[in-house]
Amino acid sequence: MSPKITTELLRQLRQVMKSPKYVQEPVQAYIVPSGDAHQSEYIAPCDCRRAFISGFDGSAGTAIVTEQHAAMWTDGRYFLQAAHQMDNNWTLMKMGLKNTPTQEDWLVSVLPEGSKVGVDPFIIPADQWKRMSKALRSAGHDLVPVKENLIDTIWTDCPQRPCKPLITLDLSYTGDSWRDKIVALRSKMAERKVVWFVVTALDEVAWLFNLRGSDVEYNPVFFAYAVIGLNTIRLFIDGDRMMDPAVREHLQLDSTLEPEFKIQVMPYGSILSELQAIGAGLLPKEKVWLSDKASYALTEAIPKAYRYLTPYTPICIAKAVKNTSETEGMRRAHIKDAVALCELFNWLEKEVVPKGTVTEIIAADKAEEFRSQQKDFVELSFATISSTGPNGAIIHYKPVPETNRTLSVNEIYLLDSGAQYKDGTTDVTRTMHFGTPSAYEKECFTYVLKGHIAVSAAIFPNGTKGHLLDSFARSALWDSGLDYLHGTGHGVGSFLNVHEGPCGISYKTFADEPLEAGMIVSDEPGYYEDGSFGIRIENVVLVIPAETKYNFKNRGSLTFEPLTLVPIQMKMIDVNLLTQKECNWVNDYHQKCREVIGAELERQGRHEALRWLIRETEPLVRVQ
Amino acid sequence: MSPKITTELLRQLRQVMKSPKYVQEPVQAYIVPSGDAHQSEYIAPCDCRRAFISGFDGSAGTAIVTEQHAAMWTDGRYFLQAAHQMDNNWTLMKMGLKNTPTQEDWLVSVLPEGSKVGVDPFIIPADQWKRMSKALRSAGHDLVPVKENLIDTIWTDCPQRPCKPLITLDLSYTGDSWRDKIVALRSKMAERKVVWFVVTALDEVAWLFNLRGSDVEYNPVFFAYAVIGLNTIRLFIDGDRMMDPAVREHLQLDSTLEPEFKIQVMPYGSILSELQAIGAGLLPKEKVWLSDKASYALTEAIPKAYRYLTPYTPICIAKAVKNTSETEGMRRAHIKDAVALCELFNWLEKEVVPKGTVTEIIAADKAEEFRSQQKDFVELSFATISSTGPNGAIIHYKPVPETNRTLSVNEIYLLDSGAQYKDGTTDVTRTMHFGTPSAYEKECFTYVLKGHIAVSAAIFPNGTKGHLLDSFARSALWDSGLDYLHGTGHGVGSFLNVHEGPCGISYKTFADEPLEAGMIVSDEPGYYEDGSFGIRIENVVLVIPAETKYNFKNRGSLTFEPLTLVPIQMKMIDVNLLTQKECNWVNDYHQKCREVIGAELERQGRHEALRWLIRETEPLVRVQ
Repeated sequence: MSPKITTELLRQLRQVMKSPKYVQEPVQAYIVPSGDAHQSEYIAPCDCRRAFISGFDGSAGTAIVTEQHAAMWTDGRYFLQAAHQMDNNWTLMKMGLKNTPTQEDWLVSVLPEGSKVGVDPFIIPADQWKRMSKALRSAGHDLVPVKENLIDTIWTDCPQRPCKPLITLDLSYTGDSWRDKIVALRSKMAERKVVWFVVTALDEVAWLFNLRGSDVEYNPVFFAYAVIGLNTIRLFIDGDRMMDPAVREHLQLDSTLEPEFKIQVMPYGSILSELQAIGAGLLPKEKVWLSDKASYALTEAIPKAYRYLTPYTPICIAKAVKNTSETEGMRRAHIKDAVALCELFNWLEKEVVPKGTVTEIIAADKAEEFRSQQKDFVELSFATISSTGPNGAIIHYKPVPETNRTLSVNEIYLLDSGAQYKDGTTDVTRTMHFGTPSAYEKECFTYVLKGHIAVSAAIFPNGTKGHLLDSFARSALWDSGLDYLHGTGHGVGSFLNVHEGPCGISYKTFADEPLEAGMIVSDEPGYYEDGSFGIRIENVVLVIPAETKYNFKNRGSLTFEPLTLVPIQMKMIDVNLLTQKECNWVNDYHQKCREVIGAELERQGRHEALRWLIRETEPLVRVQ
Repeated sequence: MSPKITTELLRQLRQVMKSPKYVQEPVQAYIVPSGDAHQSEYIAPCDCRRAFISGFDGSAGTAIVTEQHAAMWTDGRYFLQAAHQMDNNWTLMKMGLKNTPTQEDWLVSVLPEGSKVGVDPFIIPADQWKRMSKALRSAGHDLVPVKENLIDTIWTDCPQRPCKPLITLDLSYTGDSWRDKIVALRSKMAERKVVWFVVTALDEVAWLFNLRGSDVEYNPVFFAYAVIGLNTIRLFIDGDRMMDPAVREHLQLDSTLEPEFKIQVMPYGSILSELQAIGAGLLPKEKVWLSDKASYALTEAIPKAYRYLTPYTPICIAKAVKNTSETEGMRRAHIKDAVALCELFNWLEKEVVPKGTVTEIIAADKAEEFRSQQKDFVELSFATISSTGPNGAIIHYKPVPETNRTLSVNEIYLLDSGAQYKDGTTDVTRTMHFGTPSAYEKECFTYVLKGHIAVSAAIFPNGTKGHLLDSFARSALWDSGLDYLHGTGHGVGSFLNVHEGPCGISYKTFADEPLEAGMIVSDEPGYYEDGSFGIRIENVVLVIPAETKYNFKNRGSLTFEPLTLVPIQMKMIDVNLLTQKECNWVNDYHQKCREVIGAELERQGRHEALRWLIRETEPLVRVQ
């Protein structure tokens, strides 16, 4: 990896920072955040502005360019990568290290008195704007919105914003029609005395209208906003996608409808002026509901007294609780996904052991090939983490030719992968050894497994937040002085983003919403030994009601049901470290894999993979 | 309990709310919070203003009086008590119920336009002021500071502010001299570029100067503030306490000292004017450090740009990490406390079973009597919770003649009690049965015990926050559909407040400081069955380094050592619900009780109690 040469680009950027064509007054600093106008985790190529200006293309990072300096803030996952990808014009600010200044402190230390700091108001979330603006103001500077994105003005070969065809999802997939969802949303709005709701997150727009897209890789979403009134629905979307007869039919654009369900289609770019018009016409006490992560530009369009901001929108919360059609779809998707993985693991055992010709990239491609053979396969749900030996210890690893390693009988192999099917989204990690694992590797694997089981089998009262379960996943590791530095689980969408809020299982958050039946999260503890191996065991699990002896004084209780049904490699388990209960859990789980996935392999005529499955699901026996 | 008649008092209060003698402009509402000027949990009689005006004397509650209304906000622990203690003038606002308005919302709903809401700026913490002021302002009202406390103006027989003699603690108790502590504090101040530190919490003043008092029941503190500069020390304290030669000697008031260790003693009431003078004389970039819970009055004395506010002060954090002298003192205190409890339990068994004449109050008094026989006993550390049968389910129960029940062979007895000794503070809960517990009672007790052990024996990496351990205490209960609605543990002072920050073990907080070796917390899971019984098992435990196989890549690990050494009643344990590991934990614990407390009982010639101890610490045997 050689660094991107950015001298000329920075010169151009500094020029436009002073150009009256783009800025009312010159700005002495310009901030380039990571995100897009929807605060998406995964972004389209046209939104990779920070990567364009700096060369650093990790998933998290903020660039700030002043007349003299260019600095990049990123976290521990990316210190090495950023250092490699950026040239000498850039200073790397290592977030999380003690002496690294915050962006605000750094700006204050380098800016001349009374400076203006510019930022694209569409990219910066309102809560970040507020924090930064306050800090700058108290030091005598000003944060100012620069309407035209200054990177776009110098990015001559910027790719076009994607505008791909839409997929309509019928009731058999979604369970609820978009009309039902609008009705439910309006009742939430009425409860809070809100007259408008602004949908800014791409997955929320997609979920609300039962539409999917492919504007962003891995996330089946499309660029759009929506504004829902008590009697109006406005969808802001570009291109001729609305000309598609299937879409028109789905949204009933050409039908005679009650006015409150008539969708007005408007250009994507008109959201701001429309919101400003709404903001100008509000009556006293009327409120407009926005996510507190919506962009500064859209938030400002509504006068402060009329804003109703919440960390999680009612759509985010409703979307997280899957209905029966969605959970059934998720089950089907996970069965197909397991079939693909049984094929893959059977193939790997045949290829790796005698031939030694399978690289991380080949294995990842093969996994995609097997998945793509399954019905309703759409695309992968994230970049496959196919990692062997030391690469497994890099938690967000993605094999590239420079790092590509060959799988062997001497190293642990970790595969974290998933797909988008029209009926559901998968995300599964299995860790395996094609030769003979060492006692230490087995020991670590077994602690991770114990943590995985502790979460999966946990019973807890209704209303419990996921973060309260995080330590269960660590207890066995902690007893031996081991730990892993990531959360234990994230929410998973239903043919939507593989990471979604508002629930999860992590020590890092406190503001997660309580778990409730129908929510779907991942359960993925791990252990990583830098320079030698990585272990992670991940299932996607569904929150279901539990039966307990005393039922929490009728408060009710919950537990998890694994949707992922892929054998956990028994060779890696030190069975004597398991309790009898844990051993039973593994055997019950494998029994279910054998029954459910076995039947599907049989149905698909995949007999060799079926034999592999049978072999891999023999009961474990604990020596007493 | 008959309610307090408040009609006349409210009339008088409403009069002074309009009197130019006390308010610049009339206030349409007056807020009476619970606390004192130091935001203490336990308060002196002269500070019980909310109880005076309303009759409701629970530990938590806020009264608001308007021209037409009088309303009291309190939480679920006190709904019944508040309803009983208040007359018809008052509306009870049940916090935590869905339809209960917040204080702000209620004020906005009842106040005429453009109202002024008064509050004593010394009683309201700055963060609460900010929240309430903002909410009122956005509805067109104003929160205004009323300098003279309006309750005090009508409270004709208000008790005097206590001003009791001080106790000096020498190095054998404190380990560090007050000079050492000032030096350490100044180095923390220098790190943050802070030139003044304002000590507002009473236990922080006491800890800093190695002094104790008895101005507040149960808490060995005294009314004082301190302001520490880089070269000055100011102690704001009233009375002739500074005339005591022992105190003068201890603080070296008459010695020739380096100027930076010379303590200037000033009147308690002069804190505000002194702080205002400091605030007026600050140079640019100089900062003054205050707790963000300090009163609005003191916080406002420092201009905003010069304030450095943190949730936990450096004293709060330093105080929580006990040094060797303190931990040795705490050990001694717990040994003496255990001796008293062995005596008590032996006495109870002799009295309750055959005679049936022991009431909750008699048992509590007897416990105090045995404790007071121990060396360096000062007072109780909180009001003894002595509760039998259904009273045990009232978590904050305190026996009074109206509720006093007689201990019997048919009911579970729960005793939660503790004391202040000059060398340490104790807090211990034991639950026992003097007859034959039911299978269900034993089952519940055993789950609570499993939770207690899960926390006590937990191993976790350095830097772990206590709230991450809370679920360990619940897991066994959750499996059977049981839970308890309080946190699992709180910090414990060293001959100081029995509840102290900044650490604890509770699902309710997220902002606790990480646990570190030397911190002391309680471990007290419970189970409560309304109308029939309460179970709680509480030890005070010390955070100590743990030995683990892999030691968290040299990050180090921690666990707990019980300081409390009182047998856990074996009759209440269903041994078959314990794992072998848990059974071993109980046996090891009882072995230690027998050795350590046995030796002390022997030394004190308490042979009957010793025989009781031996009997109660026989090894449990698990049927395989």
